[in-house]
Amino acid sequence: MPGWYVEDGPESDVVVSSRVRFARNFEEYPFPSKMTREQGQSVLNAVRDAVLNNSSAAKNFVFIDIQQMSPIDRQALVEMHLISPDLAESQKQSGVLISKDEKISIMINEEDHLRIQCIYPGMQLDQALDLCIKVDGLLEENIRYAFDDKYGYLTCCPTNIGTGMRASVMLHLPALTMTGYIRNILDACSKIGIAVRGLYGENSEASGNMFQISNQVTLGQSEEEIASNIKNITSQIIEHERSLRDQLYKQNPYRLEDKVLRSFGLFTNARILSSEESLKLLSDVRLGVNMGIIKGISTEKLNEIMLLIQPGYLQKITGKPLSPEERDIKRAEIVRNKLGCSI
Amino acid sequence: MPGWYVEDGPESDVVVSSRVRFARNFEEYPFPSKMTREQGQSVLNAVRDAVLNNSSAAKNFVFIDIQQMSPIDRQALVEMHLISPDLAESQKQSGVLISKDEKISIMINEEDHLRIQCIYPGMQLDQALDLCIKVDGLLEENIRYAFDDKYGYLTCCPTNIGTGMRASVMLHLPALTMTGYIRNILDACSKIGIAVRGLYGENSEASGNMFQISNQVTLGQSEEEIASNIKNITSQIIEHERSLRDQLYKQNPYRLEDKVLRSFGLFTNARILSSEESLKLLSDVRLGVNMGIIKGISTEKLNEIMLLIQPGYLQKITGKPLSPEERDIKRAEIVRNKLGCSI
Repeated sequence: MPGWYVEDGPESDVVVSSRVRFARNFEEYPFPSKMTREQGQSVLNAVRDAVLNNSSAAKNFVFIDIQQMSPIDRQALVEMHLISPDLAESQKQSGVLISKDEKISIMINEEDHLRIQCIYPGMQLDQALDLCIKVDGLLEENIRYAFDDKYGYLTCCPTNIGTGMRASVMLHLPALTMTGYIRNILDACSKIGIAVRGLYGENSEASGNMFQISNQVTLGQSEEEIASNIKNITSQIIEHERSLRDQLYKQNPYRLEDKVLRSFGLFTNARILSSEESLKLLSDVRLGVNMGIIKGISTEKLNEIMLLIQPGYLQKITGKPLSPEERDIKRAEIVRNKLGCSI
Repeated sequence: MPGWYVEDGPESDVVVSSRVRFARNFEEYPFPSKMTREQGQSVLNAVRDAVLNNSSAAKNFVFIDIQQMSPIDRQALVEMHLISPDLAESQKQSGVLISKDEKISIMINEEDHLRIQCIYPGMQLDQALDLCIKVDGLLEENIRYAFDDKYGYLTCCPTNIGTGMRASVMLHLPALTMTGYIRNILDACSKIGIAVRGLYGENSEASGNMFQISNQVTLGQSEEEIASNIKNITSQIIEHERSLRDQLYKQNPYRLEDKVLRSFGLFTNARILSSEESLKLLSDVRLGVNMGIIKGISTEKLNEIMLLIQPGYLQKITGKPLSPEERDIKRAEIVRNKLGCSI
């Protein structure tokens, strides 16, 4: 279970997690899409060695060769937000270095040679950025990055050039969704160069009212400016979401309590739960916990459950592949165990 | 709370209650539809006196003048199955004598001058018939019944002539309903002169998978034959229902458990519950209790809840009229109090 999932963070009633990633490339190798097998292996070895040969970093990191992993383990890493769906499907020499607390992951030979990612619970973009800069510095001791004095860090896709930085926050926005105001947020974000995505990044749908907000522009702004921009927009969204939650409650407390507690009742009593239904119910339960309607359950526990019920992680902890039907039964069992069933 | 609701009875996994009623009329008065006000009052007084002047019966019965009752109290008596919907709406001199354990009710000036009814929990038609005969005998000490040597007891409606007896059982048939086999039962019953009705008798719909089975023929058969006929048919329906429950469970235990426990989760967590939804959920919960899927809840407790959540009874125990919205909130509160909420 990754460390950050079970830690509480600031503004955790709306902000699930904060993430920063830097895209970096070796100066002396072509981008991964153009590499030979041998070049891929050289990059993989060089990054691994840069971390594992550093005496203080070595005891903190684990190296995983993606080609050596089972499909279920790869999927679980995607669900833990430690690798991207693209890396999980990679057929090439690729790997990931993961810190013991699972706040840092360094993907090797994804779209770029290096994707350094730091993730924190709640609203902690500055902390994530600081840690990314630290890891970046450590790697730069041994790796010569592809860097241009005019453009900054060079990346495979031009949309990442410059800082190579993506700052993102995962937000839980049930009230904005219920009231339909989420449309306004999405429109406003797209106008100011902010991307809004679902639970698993690019091309994923917003499940369980989870939205990932991130910068689209990486060039012409400093890392601090990018983070500050995302923080400002997030603050406004948080205020909007909180005020709508209050309004919904004041308008008809019984109706909101009814919605939240029915979902709690279904979630904790069902014997068969699909992944999609679970995320819907979990969203209502999270809202109930954050509004004090449901007591005795922490946000961290809900983060933990959100991970445990994903198809890959679920099969990983069961220790064997499960059919979709078996997964739905196992998922309901896990939820009951974690939230305590009334029977 | 009527005594029989909180008593367990035989075959209570399928049979909620057994009822027998005798229709009787005074020889010297026209049927209620043709009576004057004064005649109505005389009948009312005569029946009341016949019971309350009998020293052993007097301390066991309460007399209620329908005209003196509030609409809510009348509705509650209907929901308790102590008076008929017709008597509740009566504009005439009408009343009811109710025994302290609420197993006996004697309606006065409904369609007939007298409707003697005895009700028992579970499958106890013989006990209900015996008690009816006893009460009938007591009344006959003071009242000369309209009786014809050829036809038997004369009644306002020819469908009741002869024995004046209706024997009925209230059955909970969720498996027959789920599988659609209930159609076959209904068809078979209608062919052999057995009426099937809903929770509140004639013209009422089957709510919460509750079906009332009763004889249509009152003439040419003895009271014992009528009761025995209903008992035989009921036995067959019980067997059919039980075997379908087993089959449903064996086919897919998880699916049945899921259905039952989701309803339990909704029932015990909702903050707003309509009457109709409650009866549906209660039916699933009852099935779960009877099949051992839900433990620690008795059938009697479910009978109690079925009564408590009716609109009239709910307002009666609250002590004031409630709007439909207030009733739905109060109903959910009562269910939580009775079944224990998981939060």
